[in-house]
Amino acid sequence: MTRTILSSPTRDVAIGFDAPFCVIGERINPTGRKLLAEEMKNGDYSRVTADALAQVAAGAMVLDVNAGIPLADEPKILAECIQLVQSITDVPLSIDSSIIDALEAGLSVYQGKPLVNSVTGENESLERVLPLVKKHGAAVVAISNDETGISTDPDVRFAVAKKIVERAMDHGIPKEDVVVDPLVMPVGAMNDAGTQVFRLVRRLREELGVNTTCGASNVGFGVPNRHLLTGHFIAMAAGAGMTSAIMNPLHEEQMQAVRAANVLNGLDPDCAAWLRANRPQSPEGEAPAGRRSGRRRRDRGEG
Amino acid sequence: MTRTILSSPTRDVAIGFDAPFCVIGERINPTGRKLLAEEMKNGDYSRVTADALAQVAAGAMVLDVNAGIPLADEPKILAECIQLVQSITDVPLSIDSSIIDALEAGLSVYQGKPLVNSVTGENESLERVLPLVKKHGAAVVAISNDETGISTDPDVRFAVAKKIVERAMDHGIPKEDVVVDPLVMPVGAMNDAGTQVFRLVRRLREELGVNTTCGASNVGFGVPNRHLLTGHFIAMAAGAGMTSAIMNPLHEEQMQAVRAANVLNGLDPDCAAWLRANRPQSPEGEAPAGRRSGRRRRDRGEG
Repeated sequence: MTRTILSSPTRDVAIGFDAPFCVIGERINPTGRKLLAEEMKNGDYSRVTADALAQVAAGAMVLDVNAGIPLADEPKILAECIQLVQSITDVPLSIDSSIIDALEAGLSVYQGKPLVNSVTGENESLERVLPLVKKHGAAVVAISNDETGISTDPDVRFAVAKKIVERAMDHGIPKEDVVVDPLVMPVGAMNDAGTQVFRLVRRLREELGVNTTCGASNVGFGVPNRHLLTGHFIAMAAGAGMTSAIMNPLHEEQMQAVRAANVLNGLDPDCAAWLRANRPQSPEGEAPAGRRSGRRRRDRGEG
Repeated sequence: MTRTILSSPTRDVAIGFDAPFCVIGERINPTGRKLLAEEMKNGDYSRVTADALAQVAAGAMVLDVNAGIPLADEPKILAECIQLVQSITDVPLSIDSSIIDALEAGLSVYQGKPLVNSVTGENESLERVLPLVKKHGAAVVAISNDETGISTDPDVRFAVAKKIVERAMDHGIPKEDVVVDPLVMPVGAMNDAGTQVFRLVRRLREELGVNTTCGASNVGFGVPNRHLLTGHFIAMAAGAGMTSAIMNPLHEEQMQAVRAANVLNGLDPDCAAWLRANRPQSPEGEAPAGRRSGRRRRDRGEG
């Protein structure tokens, strides 16, 4: 039973075959968020604080922190944001950058065992990121593309993932610390985007024995009622064996999908988390309305 | 690619590995519906008419018809309801009874190729139902329980399903005309109810090569926000390879789950059915609001 353990100074979180689906909050990311980018660039992290607290309250178990802002001092901003988020929440973090100096700056201030997001199958990425991951005892997201780009052939994506896992092991990183992202394409552009991912996830789990993640919201890009579609994608991916996703926990459809998938995958004993999050329906009438809504408010932020 | 073809005089519907998930409307069933039972017993079928039309409008592709009313003339009522429903809709029907005379009465008036719901692995059921199915050229739902009851061991349920399929073939019924119901337990009572079904469905598809169905709403029995949970169950089951469900198409959460599963399983080319059912979100603003809602109204009842 593969388990990737991430930690903050006070909390361990497991991504694993026998663990509830791990929700990695994606919100702290200036990509496509002009206002946030501008604020972060100017050292105003009030929105980072708000996003961190809101995501944890909504059920995020890990927070991704990205500071990719054009023409900004990304290593400095990323390190500052990581310190800030660690000072106000107790969840482990995913340190997210495509710039090696930024990853290094983030890792050097991080307290605990973070997730590094990400390494690809490109040789330069492997040779620069993996030693850093090893040095800091981190886990790492492995994205299954390489110098040739993102293959539309799932067998090629599997082979790239396998190569990264093997290379990580060569660097002394155990395979349970490699979380593979099989890459999710928009289903509006590629009709078999969903089935490709489900098959890949099953193979990655059964043949490679690794945990998996993905940028879930990609799947519904350009499609109406996107968040509902993404929710069903998450549940179906979890059914195929996916163990985490980088997603927006503020979209309730998606969090309900995660909770439902946990129930249906037998990972929510006695449906306890489902019951906490879902007010009993009135026809049964087991509890007076006042008590019910009181409980709901108290228990809403989960795990 | 296994395909179970059902038909009415004017329409074929395929349950199949490469076909959109088949929604079998469950509403025409007096079990637990006191008023409907009373009306049907007295020959008042107005509610049957309304249920038939509403389910087809909501997207049902097949309608289950059940007339199981204590102390009533079930064969007569079932036959009358089947004739009535066939006169007002063009979808194929599932003739649902545990009484052999009622199945026979229903089959004798049915026009086209119906689904017979159901045969079990009990010898008496096999020997009485299968010849009827063969005689009328119908397809049949095979429920994987036998004289010993419903096993909690999925291997036993698989073995029972295999026995029914083999026995059907002995009677000259091709295996593509046997749709196996692996039996869905309430997940509130049995934590691995979901995983059991997903594994069974995969085996039934890969090893036996048969289509599958289930009474989907069982899974959420006694659990709050049941219809949402059922929706996610349907999508996850479809992800595992289930090809149809006997369900309530009037629950929009469940129909959206079916549509999402079709998109994500690559069975909704160009997301056309998803687009028809889901109004484009306003931020994109591709179409003026008036036109959008007009289209939505026109296109809502789907294929």
